[in-house]
Amino acid sequence: MTASTLGTLETLSGGITTPQGFRATGVAAGIKAKGLDLALLVSDRPATAAAVFTTNRAQAAPVVVSRDHLQRSGGIARAIVVNSGCANACTGDAGLRIAREMAAETAQLVACPVEHVLVSSTGVIGVALDIDKIRRALPAAMTALAGDQGAAAARAIMTTDPFPKEAAARVSLGGREIAIGGMAKGSGMIEPRMATMLAFVTTDAAVPPALLDRALRETVNDTFNAITVDGECSTNDCVMLLANGTSGVTIDAGSYEAFAHALGTVCLRLALDIVRGGEGATKLVTVTVTGASSASEARQAAKAIANSLLVKTAIHGGDPNWGRLVAVAGRAGVGFELSRAAVKIGPIVLFKDGRPHDEAAPEAAAYLKNDEIALLVDLGVGTASSTVWTCDLSAEYVRINAEYRT
Amino acid sequence: MTASTLGTLETLSGGITTPQGFRATGVAAGIKAKGLDLALLVSDRPATAAAVFTTNRAQAAPVVVSRDHLQRSGGIARAIVVNSGCANACTGDAGLRIAREMAAETAQLVACPVEHVLVSSTGVIGVALDIDKIRRALPAAMTALAGDQGAAAARAIMTTDPFPKEAAARVSLGGREIAIGGMAKGSGMIEPRMATMLAFVTTDAAVPPALLDRALRETVNDTFNAITVDGECSTNDCVMLLANGTSGVTIDAGSYEAFAHALGTVCLRLALDIVRGGEGATKLVTVTVTGASSASEARQAAKAIANSLLVKTAIHGGDPNWGRLVAVAGRAGVGFELSRAAVKIGPIVLFKDGRPHDEAAPEAAAYLKNDEIALLVDLGVGTASSTVWTCDLSAEYVRINAEYRT
Repeated sequence: MTASTLGTLETLSGGITTPQGFRATGVAAGIKAKGLDLALLVSDRPATAAAVFTTNRAQAAPVVVSRDHLQRSGGIARAIVVNSGCANACTGDAGLRIAREMAAETAQLVACPVEHVLVSSTGVIGVALDIDKIRRALPAAMTALAGDQGAAAARAIMTTDPFPKEAAARVSLGGREIAIGGMAKGSGMIEPRMATMLAFVTTDAAVPPALLDRALRETVNDTFNAITVDGECSTNDCVMLLANGTSGVTIDAGSYEAFAHALGTVCLRLALDIVRGGEGATKLVTVTVTGASSASEARQAAKAIANSLLVKTAIHGGDPNWGRLVAVAGRAGVGFELSRAAVKIGPIVLFKDGRPHDEAAPEAAAYLKNDEIALLVDLGVGTASSTVWTCDLSAEYVRINAEYRT
Repeated sequence: MTASTLGTLETLSGGITTPQGFRATGVAAGIKAKGLDLALLVSDRPATAAAVFTTNRAQAAPVVVSRDHLQRSGGIARAIVVNSGCANACTGDAGLRIAREMAAETAQLVACPVEHVLVSSTGVIGVALDIDKIRRALPAAMTALAGDQGAAAARAIMTTDPFPKEAAARVSLGGREIAIGGMAKGSGMIEPRMATMLAFVTTDAAVPPALLDRALRETVNDTFNAITVDGECSTNDCVMLLANGTSGVTIDAGSYEAFAHALGTVCLRLALDIVRGGEGATKLVTVTVTGASSASEARQAAKAIANSLLVKTAIHGGDPNWGRLVAVAGRAGVGFELSRAAVKIGPIVLFKDGRPHDEAAPEAAAYLKNDEIALLVDLGVGTASSTVWTCDLSAEYVRINAEYRT
């Protein structure tokens, strides 16, 4: 892949309103005790839309409704409305009615068909969402919509994320520019009974629905689906992508790689910020598995390592414990050959060809004092590889998720 | 199943030397800095033997050697020799030679074929086991063997388990008695770089090898394989069962159920003690999944719940967080129907038929103050069920596994 096929990529500060023709805002609807809790994103013209939803079989009402709207609209959307503070999950038929009402109220204000509105919620599971609060706040949100208020929307979708997450990029394609921007909220149980990863991405490129869907699925696989804080998958997870074509540039087979690369860059920045903001996290850990017999086995082993309590606590404690990495790789249910396996912590080889190199342990312990850690495990059976990202496991994680009543 | 087909089962204090014709001991070989670290179990006559080994593909040397010996002997053993303090795992060909030497030295003292000796190790991964220490200690262990020293053996296989684990039972079969006894050491990273679950069980019944193997596999499935402390599977895990026939009672198709039931009783007591002794554990949690479309899906969902950090931290914090149970059941990869699902914490219904019952939350919170907690999740799709056991996740677990250098 040459530089020219990728266009010229420039990462930017900014978020969902960096691409042209998108306006957004965040307002306080009173769903949370305080702070912004309702985000509205509107495209000036109908946009092609793609989305990926949680695979959890306990799907929250807004997930059910947004999936339905995307199907009925054939992949077109004008607006996304998101609340924090209440997940509208496990709320039965009443919850579905409220999610539909939330879309209908927004559609009326935006003056678009109801199926052109996507809805999303994050917060407490099993509690009814107060539609009256949303109905009362939406007109003010419409008035406040602006092309420079993406940051307010990014704050409004937070629950107790330690910081808002935004990313943007600009790509030059044959002398014409498109922009991509996004915002996300964190995964992990940010607060008791809250667990959701949400991301919303915009672009002013025009992208046919099928190509947009393909770009989103491929990107999510290597970004949002390649991170883990605690191995959980929520009832509300979703990633939504709108392409409104305001730039006048249409993505086709020739420019697809450049577009997908830029989309991947924005999504990876958001995804890594979600890991950095995981509860109790003190380190960002990149886990790379090589020498696997297939890409899916490489991913499976990398996820097993990234979710291992013993690996995560060792990293937290600064312990270059290669034995835990070997033991997890061995139990990961994938091809593994101990006599040809290898473990590196950062650049330091600690196990290779069936033999320990504990003489390097002090050097590895020093490396583990860094905030960003790389682990590499070679399974010793093939040539496939995969990279995933996780954080360490601290006592603070346990405190956040266990002791909030004290 | 009637009482008569199960015989008359009596649980006993005692362990591996409770059945007749077994002698054991535990001695200090100097592998650990202090304390007993070498256990020897000898049957007065050749016993039929069955074993289940770790499924980890990084198999420790003693696992490889014991599996080989069992195959070569056709399922006959006279002795089991176990050291703690060093796992002899990830030690390459040198480790294999040492494990074979450990068996050969024991065979010479016991005066039996080398393949009639099974070996097992637990402790630090990746460190060479000092065979000279074992060679020097074995003669004293032979001399110390006694029919009342099972407790010493149980102490010698501990690493930093908080307490030794023994169990025994007696069954009357048609007026004649047999006994079953066992010992175990804990799972979970009891100490940094240490991770192993070992169990050794004896009986004075005569059991044909095929029947013994079947009884062990069925029992392990519902006991040792139904517990989890942290979802890890070590390089050294094994369960070994010896049946020496000293009681004069032979188990056949007619008495199999009674024997298997007694074996299950002994193994379950050991397994639950392993959970109670998990690092940082303060509560024993029984997770039952009902309403599954198959037994394997029920087990898969129960294991997902039992290994969920969010469930384990909620239990630790006394939070009746049914939303986490629903969310984990939904992502467990099994059939699940939210509108027919149910969650109970102890006897208290918190979610049923798609609707929360949060009015019962205070009662559930009070129940969660108990040391032994039962969780029930009905998946709402079928009639199959499964029960597994786990412990809560405390900050102490993180401290043990992360901060041992401080």
